[in-house]
Amino acid sequence: MDYIAELKDKGAAAKLAARKLSVASADIKDKALAAMADALENFRTDILAANSIDIENGKTKGLSKALIDRLLLNDSRINAMAEGLRQIAALPDPIGEGLGTKRRPNGLEISKVRVPLGVIGIIYEARPNVTVDAVGLCLKSGNAVLLRGGSEAINSNLAIINVITRAAYSAGVADGAIQFIETTDRQAVNAMLKLNEYLDVIIPRGGAGLIKTVVDNSSVPVIETGIGVCHTFVDESADLTMAQAIAYNAKVSRPGVCNAMETLLVHKAVADQFLPGMLKQYHEAGVELRGCPLTVLQHQGVKHATDEDWATEYHDLILAVKVVSDLDEALNHIAKYGTRHSEAIVTKNYDNARRFQQEVDAAAVYVNASTRFTDGFEFGFGAEIGISTQKIHARGPMGLTELTSVKYIISGDGHIRS
Amino acid sequence: MDYIAELKDKGAAAKLAARKLSVASADIKDKALAAMADALENFRTDILAANSIDIENGKTKGLSKALIDRLLLNDSRINAMAEGLRQIAALPDPIGEGLGTKRRPNGLEISKVRVPLGVIGIIYEARPNVTVDAVGLCLKSGNAVLLRGGSEAINSNLAIINVITRAAYSAGVADGAIQFIETTDRQAVNAMLKLNEYLDVIIPRGGAGLIKTVVDNSSVPVIETGIGVCHTFVDESADLTMAQAIAYNAKVSRPGVCNAMETLLVHKAVADQFLPGMLKQYHEAGVELRGCPLTVLQHQGVKHATDEDWATEYHDLILAVKVVSDLDEALNHIAKYGTRHSEAIVTKNYDNARRFQQEVDAAAVYVNASTRFTDGFEFGFGAEIGISTQKIHARGPMGLTELTSVKYIISGDGHIRS
Repeated sequence: MDYIAELKDKGAAAKLAARKLSVASADIKDKALAAMADALENFRTDILAANSIDIENGKTKGLSKALIDRLLLNDSRINAMAEGLRQIAALPDPIGEGLGTKRRPNGLEISKVRVPLGVIGIIYEARPNVTVDAVGLCLKSGNAVLLRGGSEAINSNLAIINVITRAAYSAGVADGAIQFIETTDRQAVNAMLKLNEYLDVIIPRGGAGLIKTVVDNSSVPVIETGIGVCHTFVDESADLTMAQAIAYNAKVSRPGVCNAMETLLVHKAVADQFLPGMLKQYHEAGVELRGCPLTVLQHQGVKHATDEDWATEYHDLILAVKVVSDLDEALNHIAKYGTRHSEAIVTKNYDNARRFQQEVDAAAVYVNASTRFTDGFEFGFGAEIGISTQKIHARGPMGLTELTSVKYIISGDGHIRS
Repeated sequence: MDYIAELKDKGAAAKLAARKLSVASADIKDKALAAMADALENFRTDILAANSIDIENGKTKGLSKALIDRLLLNDSRINAMAEGLRQIAALPDPIGEGLGTKRRPNGLEISKVRVPLGVIGIIYEARPNVTVDAVGLCLKSGNAVLLRGGSEAINSNLAIINVITRAAYSAGVADGAIQFIETTDRQAVNAMLKLNEYLDVIIPRGGAGLIKTVVDNSSVPVIETGIGVCHTFVDESADLTMAQAIAYNAKVSRPGVCNAMETLLVHKAVADQFLPGMLKQYHEAGVELRGCPLTVLQHQGVKHATDEDWATEYHDLILAVKVVSDLDEALNHIAKYGTRHSEAIVTKNYDNARRFQQEVDAAAVYVNASTRFTDGFEFGFGAEIGISTQKIHARGPMGLTELTSVKYIISGDGHIRS
C-alpha cells in the first residue's frame, strides 16, 4: 500500500473509532489498559525478539551507543511499560467532567463539559516505550491515535502495537482506535502533517529538528513540546550553598532531558565568591564550560561562549556561564535566549523573587528550586505526554487533562433568538 | 519600507511591549480602554473622513452593496465601537487569576496562574469595527496585537489606529503594544504567517478562503474560527410547532452569520406532517430550497441538492433539506458534513436528546433551541473575538479568558531533584 493510501485509510478508521471512544465508559478504558499491560508482559518474548532485530540493524547502520540504548528493550523496560499503563488506568477519567453550568436570563441552560480532542497524531523518534505511553494516555483520555515512530524502532513498534491493540479491542475499545503508520518513508511524515480531515492535533516528541519540521510544515494544529534552553540565575542575595546545590542538580543530574539547565547566570556582586567553587564542582563532574568574557578571564578551563551557545540546548554535559550586572540583565537574557520552558532564580530578596516570577515568560518559573522538577510526575499529574513550550492550549507538563477539549451543551424549551 | 522589514519591526516592537503589558494592572488597562472610547467619539470627524475615501474607492472598484455596507462607518457605528470598548473595560481582568496551588509531598509549592498569550496576530477582512474590537479584547487580556486588515478599509483602519493608539499610550499602555500593518500587499499575509519569532498565535476573522489560507500556511499556531455548516434535526417526537419556530429562526433571523442553519434534517415519520408548512414559511421568507430526492419529489419549488450543497456554508437565504430515516442517519450526516460549530435537535425523547448531546462533535450542541445562540454575548462572556471551530485551546465563543495562557510558578527552599 502506498503511504498516502495508508495514511488516509488509517486516519479515516481512527476518526470513525474516535466517535465511539469519545463516549466509552471509564470502566472499559481502564479494563483495556489493564489488559494491554498484561499482554505486554505475556508476549514479552515476541517483543524482545522484534527488538533484537532493530538492535542488530542499528548496530549495522552504526547508530551511536546512546541511540542503541534508547532503542533497547529488556525485561525491566517491558515491566516499566506495563506498570506505566496500570498507573494510567488508576488515574481519574478526565472525560465528562462538568466545567460549570449557567442559566441565562432567558432560561437557556449552558453547560461546559470536558470531551476528548478526537484523533491525536503523535510523531516520535527512537524510544519504543513512547508507543506504549502515547497509546495509554490517548486511550484513557478518550482519543483515537495515529502514531508515526522512528524507522530504527519499526520492528519493536510493530510487535508492541500488535500486542496492545489486540488486548485493547478484546477489552471493548472501538476497533480502529489505535493506528500505527507502517511505512518508514520519510514522506509519510509530510503527508501526515496535512491530514486535517482526520487529525485534530499533532504532538511531536523528539529533538529540535523533528519539532521544527512539524511546526514549519503542519497545517494540522500542533502542540510544540520539549525544547528547553533553561537558565538558573544566582542573585546577589542568594544563599550560595543553596545556589550551588541547585545549579549542580539542574545541570548534572540528567543533562540529556529538556528541563536541564543550559546557561548559568550569576550576579556580578557574588561572582567572585560563587564561581570558583561552583566551576570546580562542574569540572569534577566532567562538565565542559563556555563563558562570557569575564568568566573566561577569571577562570581557567573555560572556553569562549559564542552567541550560538546562549541559544543552544546542549542535551549534554556542557554549560554556558554568564556574569550579569543585575536582575534586569538576567531577565533580558532569558527573554532573548530562553525557550519558555523552565527558568529559576536563587535569591533571598522578596522583590526580586516576585519580579522574576511575574516577568519571566516560561511554562515553569522557579524560586529556590531546580528546573529539573518540570515533569508530569513531579507536578502530580501522574503521567505526561510531553512538556508544552507554546502558549496555546496547554503549557508545561501535559497530563490527561491537556489531552482534552470542551464542548457546550445547551438545553432549551423552544428558545429562539430575537 | 518593504513589508518584510515592516513586519519584523512591528513584530519586535509588539513583543517588547508584551513583556510590559503582561504585568500591567487592570486599572491602567481599563483607563486606556475608556480613553480609547472617548477618543473615537472625539475624533469621529477624522475617522468618517477617512472612511469616506474607502467608500469612494470601493464604489470605483465596483465592490458589492453588501461589502460597501460592511465597510461603511457612521455616527451610530462609531458610538457602537466606543460602547464596545466601555463594555470590555467593565469586564473582570482575566490576568493573574489563580487556577489552583498544590503543595507536593516534598514541600514544593506549585501554583498555576493565568497570563496573557503574548502577541496575538489578527488577520481580518472588510469591517473596520473589527480593528477596535480586536484591540480592545487583546489589550484587556494583557496581549500586544499585530493587526492586518482588509485593503478596502485601509484608510478607515489607519485613522482608527491613529486615534486609539495615541489614547492608549497616553493612558499608560506600553508603547508599541498596538501594531497595524500598513502595507496592503497580499504577500504581507504570507510573511505574517511565518512570524514565529514574534507571534504567539494568529486568529483569522473572515470568510472560508481567508481561513483556509491561514490554516494551510501558518507556522504560527492558529485558532480557526467561524465556518459554520450548522444543522437542525427535527426528531420523530418533536413538538412540530416548536420545531418550526426554531428551524425558521435558525435560518432566517440572520442568514449571513456563522451560527445560522444551513441544513435542515427531518425524521421521515414526521416529514409529511412537518415539511409542507415549514417549506411554505421558508418560501414566503424568500428562502431558496435544495432538497434530497424525497423532498424534491414531494414538494414544489425545491431544487436537487448536490453533495456540495450538504457541505456548503451558504451565508445566505438558501437552505438544504434532507429527510432521514432515524437519529443515526442524522448523526452520521452531521459527522460527515458538519463543521463542528453548532448543531441542534428538536425532540421530546430523553434518550435521543442525550445521545445527540453526547455523540455530536461540535462546539455547541443544542436541544430544543436555535443554533443562533452561539455567540459571546448570548453565552454571557460579554464580548468575543470569534467562534473557535477547532478542538485545541478554545472551542466555541472566545471571550477574554480564551485570549490567555497559563504558567506555573514554583516556590522552593533549595529543592533539588533526586
